[in-house]
Amino acid sequence: MKIFDISWPISKATTGYKDRYIVSIDEIKNFNRDGVRETAIHLSSHTGTHVDAPSHFLKEGRTIDEITLDRLIGDAVVLDMTTCAERITRDCLLAHENDIVAGGIVLLRTTNSDLSPTDKFSPHFVYLEASGAKYLAEKKVKAVGIDYLGIEHSQPGHPTHENLLNADVVVIEGLRLGHVQPGKYLFVCLPLNMIGTEAAPARAILMAK
Amino acid sequence: MKIFDISWPISKATTGYKDRYIVSIDEIKNFNRDGVRETAIHLSSHTGTHVDAPSHFLKEGRTIDEITLDRLIGDAVVLDMTTCAERITRDCLLAHENDIVAGGIVLLRTTNSDLSPTDKFSPHFVYLEASGAKYLAEKKVKAVGIDYLGIEHSQPGHPTHENLLNADVVVIEGLRLGHVQPGKYLFVCLPLNMIGTEAAPARAILMAK
Repeated sequence: MKIFDISWPISKATTGYKDRYIVSIDEIKNFNRDGVRETAIHLSSHTGTHVDAPSHFLKEGRTIDEITLDRLIGDAVVLDMTTCAERITRDCLLAHENDIVAGGIVLLRTTNSDLSPTDKFSPHFVYLEASGAKYLAEKKVKAVGIDYLGIEHSQPGHPTHENLLNADVVVIEGLRLGHVQPGKYLFVCLPLNMIGTEAAPARAILMAK
Repeated sequence: MKIFDISWPISKATTGYKDRYIVSIDEIKNFNRDGVRETAIHLSSHTGTHVDAPSHFLKEGRTIDEITLDRLIGDAVVLDMTTCAERITRDCLLAHENDIVAGGIVLLRTTNSDLSPTDKFSPHFVYLEASGAKYLAEKKVKAVGIDYLGIEHSQPGHPTHENLLNADVVVIEGLRLGHVQPGKYLFVCLPLNMIGTEAAPARAILMAK
């Protein structure tokens, strides 16, 4: 079965959200000195590919360990959103309404995937507008993913996150989708098993059906 | 499809290998002050469930990003090794030889799974002895996992790692297997997409077949 890795590479050069929280990788043991290599990693819970839990934006929201993994595994559709120049609205999504189903996973492939994973942070990334988020919540998808480090910007009150997280739609940010064709796949996204945090770094793959 | 999470929980209380490299989780943004929660994480590449790349112990070994994910996904067998009191030898494994197949993934469920993931480090954990590692390499399994933070101890020259890594058998440490029955499953282990490191933290699951 063909596996597509759709995860953001993590290194010291990885783009940070708003250029904050640069990854550090420290050498703890050195091969020449110790006969073994060993590193430690310092990163934001929102570095690269990651899953947001409701507690990121909601006062009483659940933490990442309270999201069951069945919400991050299953049938997914990669939608071609490259014609949406700035933001993904309800109207952009309506053109794909037959592919957006209750219990499904929607992955938004935008022109963000043209950016390199080590480019300076792009404040003008294509985002999911509140109307698009509300539509996906109404359609009862179980998760939505996007190909940049955030799923929204420039919206006071974070209505995209609020619409999704209040409806228990899991938010996956920092995917890389430029190398996969739009269409249907089996999706598996496994965040680190962090206890009590509002997000966790993850690895995500698509498998051809 | 039933999903079993077999990953070690990660928190500030997580047991560290030889009680080193305690995880830290720092609050970057606070809900009351900032209206959003955000954390940063500092952990060893060998914290909890993780994958060792050949470069951990081999001078010219490949790094974690050079291990293709198909080696961490596929048919697996959980073997009951709870009767092996101290170490898993070739003889322990021979009793299961029909379940150990070329291209398969072998997961060793030992009495280590009785230890809590926040207990003080146990230097007497059950490990895979060199003879057992050599046998698994000869059988050409593609990966082997164990339910403690290391797969070997007390063997000068690290022959267990050397036998496995030299034969391109991927090593997965820090699994939790106490809650799964021995038998056959579909296994998915996804390490963070670290570039150039000798290991990476991972999440691992079993799916009932």
